[in-house]
Amino acid sequence: MSVTPSSYSVTIRLYTRPDFAVVGTVATSIAASGGIVTAIDVAESRHDRLVVDVTCSARDADHSEQLVKVVEGLDGITVHKVSDRTFLLHLGGKIEVASKVPLKNRDDLSMAYTPGVGRVCMALAEHPEDIPKLTIKGNAVAVVTDGSAVLGLGNIGPGASLPVTEGKAALFKRFANIDAWPICLDTQDVDEIVRTVELIAPGFGGINLEDIAAPRCFEIERRLRASLDIPVFHDDQHGTAIVVLAALTNALRVVGKAVNDVRVVVSGAGAAGSAIVDLLLAGGVGDVVVWDREGLLSRDDSTLPPAKAALAGRTNASCLRGELRDGLAGSDVFIGVSGPGVLKAEWIADMADQPIVFALANPDPEVDPVEASKYAAVVASGRSDYPNQINNVLAFPGVFRGLLDARASEITPAMLLRAAYAIAATVTDEELHASFIIPSVFNPAVPKAVAEAIKGPEVVKI
Amino acid sequence: MSVTPSSYSVTIRLYTRPDFAVVGTVATSIAASGGIVTAIDVAESRHDRLVVDVTCSARDADHSEQLVKVVEGLDGITVHKVSDRTFLLHLGGKIEVASKVPLKNRDDLSMAYTPGVGRVCMALAEHPEDIPKLTIKGNAVAVVTDGSAVLGLGNIGPGASLPVTEGKAALFKRFANIDAWPICLDTQDVDEIVRTVELIAPGFGGINLEDIAAPRCFEIERRLRASLDIPVFHDDQHGTAIVVLAALTNALRVVGKAVNDVRVVVSGAGAAGSAIVDLLLAGGVGDVVVWDREGLLSRDDSTLPPAKAALAGRTNASCLRGELRDGLAGSDVFIGVSGPGVLKAEWIADMADQPIVFALANPDPEVDPVEASKYAAVVASGRSDYPNQINNVLAFPGVFRGLLDARASEITPAMLLRAAYAIAATVTDEELHASFIIPSVFNPAVPKAVAEAIKGPEVVKI
Repeated sequence: MSVTPSSYSVTIRLYTRPDFAVVGTVATSIAASGGIVTAIDVAESRHDRLVVDVTCSARDADHSEQLVKVVEGLDGITVHKVSDRTFLLHLGGKIEVASKVPLKNRDDLSMAYTPGVGRVCMALAEHPEDIPKLTIKGNAVAVVTDGSAVLGLGNIGPGASLPVTEGKAALFKRFANIDAWPICLDTQDVDEIVRTVELIAPGFGGINLEDIAAPRCFEIERRLRASLDIPVFHDDQHGTAIVVLAALTNALRVVGKAVNDVRVVVSGAGAAGSAIVDLLLAGGVGDVVVWDREGLLSRDDSTLPPAKAALAGRTNASCLRGELRDGLAGSDVFIGVSGPGVLKAEWIADMADQPIVFALANPDPEVDPVEASKYAAVVASGRSDYPNQINNVLAFPGVFRGLLDARASEITPAMLLRAAYAIAATVTDEELHASFIIPSVFNPAVPKAVAEAIKGPEVVKI
Repeated sequence: MSVTPSSYSVTIRLYTRPDFAVVGTVATSIAASGGIVTAIDVAESRHDRLVVDVTCSARDADHSEQLVKVVEGLDGITVHKVSDRTFLLHLGGKIEVASKVPLKNRDDLSMAYTPGVGRVCMALAEHPEDIPKLTIKGNAVAVVTDGSAVLGLGNIGPGASLPVTEGKAALFKRFANIDAWPICLDTQDVDEIVRTVELIAPGFGGINLEDIAAPRCFEIERRLRASLDIPVFHDDQHGTAIVVLAALTNALRVVGKAVNDVRVVVSGAGAAGSAIVDLLLAGGVGDVVVWDREGLLSRDDSTLPPAKAALAGRTNASCLRGELRDGLAGSDVFIGVSGPGVLKAEWIADMADQPIVFALANPDPEVDPVEASKYAAVVASGRSDYPNQINNVLAFPGVFRGLLDARASEITPAMLLRAAYAIAATVTDEELHASFIIPSVFNPAVPKAVAEAIKGPEVVKI
């Protein structure tokens, strides 16, 4: 597959003879080896040598080592140091706390802290309904994980999951001006996780559950929604589902099919798969069949564990049995939230006319999107180096912005539907295209539209 | 007592005829009523009226209402709106989260978030010792409270204590560039508090316990210090003790007494009192006697509850009994961390030559500092409107800065002593004076000196 830009980005510090032509030689040889030079900086210039920082992107770690070797082999060049830009970026963490109030003199302190702050506390003790107005509770979200299901890495624990939760917090601020703080829990016990989140809830306006493995994530979210008066949202479930429904809504616009008429096969019965199924059904999808490692999930299979049995009970009315290929025959849509390589591109030919394929396994999709596009009318993945990236960043910032602004205490399926349709609607008829069914995460209209959709009673349906 | 500047600060928006002399009249009448005008701003100027914002400080809420009435009574003036500046300051909370990394395009996202972040997570899963270097854990402190002992307000609960914990976090950033986040717990059960802090510890480099009532705070701190590998510091105990010892060290310099020779009476056997006693004893104070509502604490009093009995066991070797005045006779130092009015100024005359009086009850001290200074050689309080303000802000930022920089896993009494002496040492011989025994919280040398003292093995002793 092609280069994933920049995530394997290294800065190579070279010592070279003071010959500016050398710089061009370095750039050329990196390009010839499949790398992309993104910056060249002459850090130091002496009569006997130049110090040059060359920043380039590689496909992966091995490729970046290869590029370094190529450069080292060039005449007159010494590689002094290689810095991985991604790691450099993470030094000291990716978020910080900032004060919003001046603290320059005694006057400032006496209002922001003692004794002035005491009057504010007293007022809140008497009027707790004012807490969201006069504190961070009105704008703060806890990003809660136990590190048990992090990206494609699995169970790496709370400490190692900090970079993901910090990144999430940075995105909350960037796209919705929300103050999110990582809460990485040193337990995987459901009772302890539920109780801990209940106990820290007073300082937050919402809870974003993150990277907690199925099936524990279902019970945790269910119990917290019952006990807390602030909204609780497992992004891996509902954020994914919202964006998938948005993408599907627009893909159906492209191929000219009605949602009630289509049959969808979902590959993967974990957190994302279950939530996608539920939202698709709420959105009126005609028929949904789920495939997982056990085969096509059917209610007449008594060997299924509880969560998957429940999923089977909500889907596959005709009790279709078999493997993924069996389920695909005649289906209109494939949505993969499972693992790499489970879908052979040629099986897409078995699907109905104008098939839609969303291969979202991360980092390697169920099928190569380029291969899939030989058979499918519309293809989407989770990757940023292909068109139609289905990225949760399109949903969670605006969702929480709307929830916080509305001082919502719960999240309803109707809100999720409205959010999905709002994302879909930001792609205009002029823009809509088989290779453009999803807006860019950098489109500022998206989080605004999602927040409005969360707040408003009107269902914006395409 | 005199005006506490600014914490009762209001902005009065007036409509007045377009006559600039009016502005002077307003300022004069406010001053005549005992208020202080701190700002005048002509917000709008039309041919038929001026809109003028007058900001002024009052003694308290009643006084500010009185000032508004005075202004309302002036000819040609209408009061349109009165805004309490302290409350205005708190709108939306006092802290926020900021991203430290760029998030402008896909390249940025692919390094700060997926897929690049996955490599960092994997590296940390293999090398957890690198977590403080590559995440916020190296710079983050949790400010943990249950809201049970907030300032002078007592048990107001977690939500109402948010303004105090936010203020603390703002101060951590301002004075030590530490990223602190409020954790306000919805429980007062010791086991639940201990377990919750243990479970959230992975994302933090230190725990600051705040406003948790005695005696529960002792057990909570003890158990967390035993189970966590990050430092745990109850500021109400140890921050207060550090600054008190610093102030005492310098007061003794002023009066020319040696620490081993003095007898100290501590009024108040709660969190602060206990910790002050322990640090004074560690610092070599000759004799300490504690007074609380039960009377002078003595080990031969079998009616004392456990924490106070333990305190009695460490102090008052001669088993002195009686009331505060009895304990004061012949003592060199009075340190009050109790309540207002427990010390009559004239009792100070019973004390030894050159008595030192620290009256730290908040907001109203044990004795009026002005009255006390008629009898005592050196007087300190917790108030910002008198000289010698004993303020924990002098300690906790530098303490945690040192702990985080050293990647310390625990706090020792030696560290606390060094911190106290470092604060005392920032007051030079030239500056040292009965009315200047404590540096200003705005002196940037203080947190630096405290951090170095925490980290370094040398005991900087005066």
